[in-house]
Amino acid sequence: MFKKDKPDLGKWEILEERTIYECNPWIRLDIHKIKLPSGKIVDDFHRLVMPENVVVYPVTAIHEILMLRAYRHGVGNVTYLFPGGFIEKGEIPLDAAKRELLEETGFRGGDWQSMGSFVPHSNYGCGKVHMFRATDVEKVQSPDSGDLEEAEIHLMNREMLMKAVSDGRITSLSSIAALSLSTNDLFV
Amino acid sequence: MFKKDKPDLGKWEILEERTIYECNPWIRLDIHKIKLPSGKIVDDFHRLVMPENVVVYPVTAIHEILMLRAYRHGVGNVTYLFPGGFIEKGEIPLDAAKRELLEETGFRGGDWQSMGSFVPHSNYGCGKVHMFRATDVEKVQSPDSGDLEEAEIHLMNREMLMKAVSDGRITSLSSIAALSLSTNDLFV
Repeated sequence: MFKKDKPDLGKWEILEERTIYECNPWIRLDIHKIKLPSGKIVDDFHRLVMPENVVVYPVTAIHEILMLRAYRHGVGNVTYLFPGGFIEKGEIPLDAAKRELLEETGFRGGDWQSMGSFVPHSNYGCGKVHMFRATDVEKVQSPDSGDLEEAEIHLMNREMLMKAVSDGRITSLSSIAALSLSTNDLFV
Repeated sequence: MFKKDKPDLGKWEILEERTIYECNPWIRLDIHKIKLPSGKIVDDFHRLVMPENVVVYPVTAIHEILMLRAYRHGVGNVTYLFPGGFIEKGEIPLDAAKRELLEETGFRGGDWQSMGSFVPHSNYGCGKVHMFRATDVEKVQSPDSGDLEEAEIHLMNREMLMKAVSDGRITSLSSIAALSLSTNDLFV
């Protein structure tokens, strides 16, 4: 019914790349000159190089889920989201996830499970997000994120989570992915 | 236990904005001068303005799930992903989703359910993705996407989907979110 093994299904060849703008380490905008598998040339395909980051779905021993409520400028509003942030130089994703959870919430410990790694924008990149689920986390200190944004910490049950989703209060793609993966019987 | 109603939890004020680079309609990189709720000034917070797009989780009457297998330059590899694309000028998200499904797979019809709208990068933006689940879709024509990338169409069952996830073959954040939302008992 469908064509399989199309000859043109393959990697693009980068013939040239030049950097249009760079603000290290936050963002670099490149333009690639590309040769498609068909032989066609594309002169200006954009590529956004940004740091990899982590997102954590944290659950306490009594099945409360930790969320932050904070302003995010990319959303342009106050939103519910899960703890996370950029991976520091030399850090592995799991260590970054544990560090961000502790800094942003004061919780740590528990069992950690990787939920996979994903690219935010499949055409242009925009970094990569590594997702984790942490169970049996417990509070050990006060949060101290050092972020530009102040945050509230909310302990949610599943009903509250579902209401936050249906009300459109979760606006971050990585947070909705972490939530829906971590609560999905297919994957946990 | 937690501080609530922090006075600093609020929108940032944009004092100035300037465009660093623009390639209409694909990408615009702005820099905002920001006043935080605390009064602190941030001179250079980036903002990526990109078109809104749609992603569709399509299911046939006999519970097959349609996926594409195609190269995506943001991923840098061939990947499994769901049909979708940019919303055209004047188009509402649902119409864009129906158009992209038809163009990319040749399938249409069925019942359509919104799974929400989300921002790919909560700090810098990078557009917005509108997610849909379409059930009882059926093939009416050959695909003709007009995209730069050739694509295979795969009809998957749930076991194949789970294997694609566990093997890391689904690398797009919007595709994993569409899949995990659409198969999650909490949300469907």
